[in-house]
Amino acid sequence: LETLDTYKAILGEIGKLRSAESLLAWDQQTHMPGAGSAARADALGKLSRLGFELATSDELGQCIEELEARDDLSDEEAASVRDVGRQYRRQKAIPPDLFEAFTIAQSKGQAAWAEARAKADFAHFRPNLEKLVDFARQFAEYYGYEDTPYDALLEPFEPGMTSRRLRKIIEPLKAELVPFLERIAAEGTPPDADVLVGSFPVNMQREMSRRTLEIIGYDYGSGALDDAPHPFTTEIAHGDVRITNRYEEDDPVSGLFGALHEGGHALYGQGMGENLYKLSLSDGASFGIHESQSRLIENQIGRSRPFWRFFQPIIGEFLPQLAGVDAEALYRAVNVVSPSLIRVEADEVTYNFHIMLRFELESALINGETAVADLPALWNDAMQRYLGVSPNDDADGVLQDVHWSMGAFGYFPSYMLGNLYAAQVATALRADRPNLDAEIEAGDFEPLVSWLREKVHQFGGVHRAEDLIRRITGEGLNAKHFIDYVVGKFSDIYRL
Amino acid sequence: LETLDTYKAILGEIGKLRSAESLLAWDQQTHMPGAGSAARADALGKLSRLGFELATSDELGQCIEELEARDDLSDEEAASVRDVGRQYRRQKAIPPDLFEAFTIAQSKGQAAWAEARAKADFAHFRPNLEKLVDFARQFAEYYGYEDTPYDALLEPFEPGMTSRRLRKIIEPLKAELVPFLERIAAEGTPPDADVLVGSFPVNMQREMSRRTLEIIGYDYGSGALDDAPHPFTTEIAHGDVRITNRYEEDDPVSGLFGALHEGGHALYGQGMGENLYKLSLSDGASFGIHESQSRLIENQIGRSRPFWRFFQPIIGEFLPQLAGVDAEALYRAVNVVSPSLIRVEADEVTYNFHIMLRFELESALINGETAVADLPALWNDAMQRYLGVSPNDDADGVLQDVHWSMGAFGYFPSYMLGNLYAAQVATALRADRPNLDAEIEAGDFEPLVSWLREKVHQFGGVHRAEDLIRRITGEGLNAKHFIDYVVGKFSDIYRL
Repeated sequence: LETLDTYKAILGEIGKLRSAESLLAWDQQTHMPGAGSAARADALGKLSRLGFELATSDELGQCIEELEARDDLSDEEAASVRDVGRQYRRQKAIPPDLFEAFTIAQSKGQAAWAEARAKADFAHFRPNLEKLVDFARQFAEYYGYEDTPYDALLEPFEPGMTSRRLRKIIEPLKAELVPFLERIAAEGTPPDADVLVGSFPVNMQREMSRRTLEIIGYDYGSGALDDAPHPFTTEIAHGDVRITNRYEEDDPVSGLFGALHEGGHALYGQGMGENLYKLSLSDGASFGIHESQSRLIENQIGRSRPFWRFFQPIIGEFLPQLAGVDAEALYRAVNVVSPSLIRVEADEVTYNFHIMLRFELESALINGETAVADLPALWNDAMQRYLGVSPNDDADGVLQDVHWSMGAFGYFPSYMLGNLYAAQVATALRADRPNLDAEIEAGDFEPLVSWLREKVHQFGGVHRAEDLIRRITGEGLNAKHFIDYVVGKFSDIYRL
Repeated sequence: LETLDTYKAILGEIGKLRSAESLLAWDQQTHMPGAGSAARADALGKLSRLGFELATSDELGQCIEELEARDDLSDEEAASVRDVGRQYRRQKAIPPDLFEAFTIAQSKGQAAWAEARAKADFAHFRPNLEKLVDFARQFAEYYGYEDTPYDALLEPFEPGMTSRRLRKIIEPLKAELVPFLERIAAEGTPPDADVLVGSFPVNMQREMSRRTLEIIGYDYGSGALDDAPHPFTTEIAHGDVRITNRYEEDDPVSGLFGALHEGGHALYGQGMGENLYKLSLSDGASFGIHESQSRLIENQIGRSRPFWRFFQPIIGEFLPQLAGVDAEALYRAVNVVSPSLIRVEADEVTYNFHIMLRFELESALINGETAVADLPALWNDAMQRYLGVSPNDDADGVLQDVHWSMGAFGYFPSYMLGNLYAAQVATALRADRPNLDAEIEAGDFEPLVSWLREKVHQFGGVHRAEDLIRRITGEGLNAKHFIDYVVGKFSDIYRL
């Protein structure tokens, strides 16, 4: 067992450095004073380099090779070697000089993007994006792929997923939901969103989020809730999974749904045993599966009628102006469907359209079928096709997301996959627990969380996404569940 | 300049690791959830090991040796080489096996101490303390000394200080202040402490501390105030000097003085240029000098009559129950003199006595003149001699401080030196700025802080403590200033 011990020891050392790095990054967004940012960047760079050195060391490479040949490993150990090996080879695949040039292009790209967005001037960002696309295309060649270069970039976010498969998944979604959205607009009775209009003290919203996280089973004994400009969840270590959130004075629920979303991610992190952290399996089965856990809590539960029957008195307790609004009105108001220009403001019906267009554009870029110069026009066309709206300028269009400016191609599909996995898992959940609605309405989240623990959380990254979904639902990813869910729910809300 | 560049680069790398380590340690006391503690200890251990490896590397040793022979270094560079060289040699002096055995004895010692203190049972701690004393005696031999082994342990806290010198400093303090304390008790008119009795909401005390720190010039743009079980200041990096504090519901001023004390430390850290951080000179001239900055703000300023004339309306704003108490009554109430069993609760007149007895006992232990077994009896005797009080049990006596359980001998004198330096610096300050009292009474702290910046802060660790004091006051450390200050102030308060 010598090699296995060495392997685990190296992962242990990497884990300590990554844990420190996570804390520094978390603090950077939460408590760090502005004047500390230069020194923080240096310290983060140092930790990242040390971690990278260990993660690409010959010693680790030898362990992986030896362990891959062994058949006496536990399921967890084998999964760890599979994933760590995959990451090791990807990191070794890129020549160090090329990677360094890429990191420079990334930081220049982000700066140019921020400026371009502020000025709504895509031309200012275009040369940077061209370079980043070029790097990504080179990387794809180094990583290798079976079908298209883009598949090599999808891999780290959704191992095993391909663009061919994604296109298949998208087909029925598009076919069913584009007309459904048109029907909602044409024939639907929209909820009264005005019941949520007002001014709601941020400190009360914060306390409401704190309490809501407690209610859904988030454990503050191994976590913390802090303010940050953008909500995120960070797994600093086993026993330390923190959430950040932000609140809008003129919106009583955006902070609440932020907390529920991050709470879903955090329950996943808190539901994994220490062993998974030690074996570097604590990132979960894939980005899409992780997102499914946040979407399930945020949407399948948090935007459901039983939840609002339960939550109505609680929101009234924290935000007394809303005490007189009944549960049904609240439920309807948090489920307004409205084609928006901005992805992060999208509702359940329209969200995936934002992803589809990004996937189509970025895969065409990487596969060499589209030029960067054509992006703005293609973006606006696609928005019109999917959502029937067009941005006034590129700031609200092709420049709205940070991802491409960081050279992160292949990330966007995870958001859509999260929605689809969530719906499919929720179907299985409802079949297993026919009383779920009554439990949620009674404020009893324990059965829900126990079920997620048993079916999803406890495995961390042991099973691949597709295998995990098959274990839970008896079939591979199937967009039908999402379509049924959305059409059913919103036909009711919009009285179609 | 090749070697100097290498030297600075190594310090830079050490600095990044130490910065990360400081943040992890700060978070451990402030935001970390309980379940994260095991992983945190691992991550801290890793960072500490990496820092130690760099700080004891042959490459750094060679740089130090070459740079020590050069005469073209700037004052800052020369001071850096002097201090880094001293630390390097100390760290290299101890055989690694011995040091590892010591760290184990430290953690066992702390556990045994905590248990012994809880049970008020010194015998439970005695064998651990004997081991720790034995390690310290061995270390002293490795470090080397001119006069007594204890001097080798004083060195890292107060470079250049010796026990012979300390004894000389203590003589007049003892001669003057023991009878003065007796006179206060026998003939003094005590202030009415009851004006501060009541229940004071912690959140209002926290806001008052926040505001007070702002008033004295603490910069939140390069700092932060957080709750922690014990107040401390931590220099995470240039531009990031944080304070923690704690508040007692039944004491309206302990949190306030905690904030002023830490504020004094933090102003020192915020008053040093980036260059000092990069050269590892940001710890200040010595522990005693650092403590002088906290004591000056806490006592010389915060417990002064002009301060309370200024602060009276502010305390009333945050703690309305106190709005009716006049400035003079508040000033007197925060200056009650009362021999206490516990060091950290001691007033300005009695505090140094607590240090004298610890210094006498620990130096005797290290120099082999006293056995650990005799400590409790010697402690109680000394308390009676200095303060006229005796603890009921060892929890309130010899077991009250954590320092010895960590093997930290030679630390205590810094607290007393801080008081003495503060009084001596304050004498010079008042001579330089005859309007100081009027400025403080008007709430104008800018001239005070500018003076401290110019005379103390900007130099960080460039000048040694004794040199710095001589530069500022024209003479070496002289306890007379403290005696005059205390006798003058408390003769007035106690109407002697």
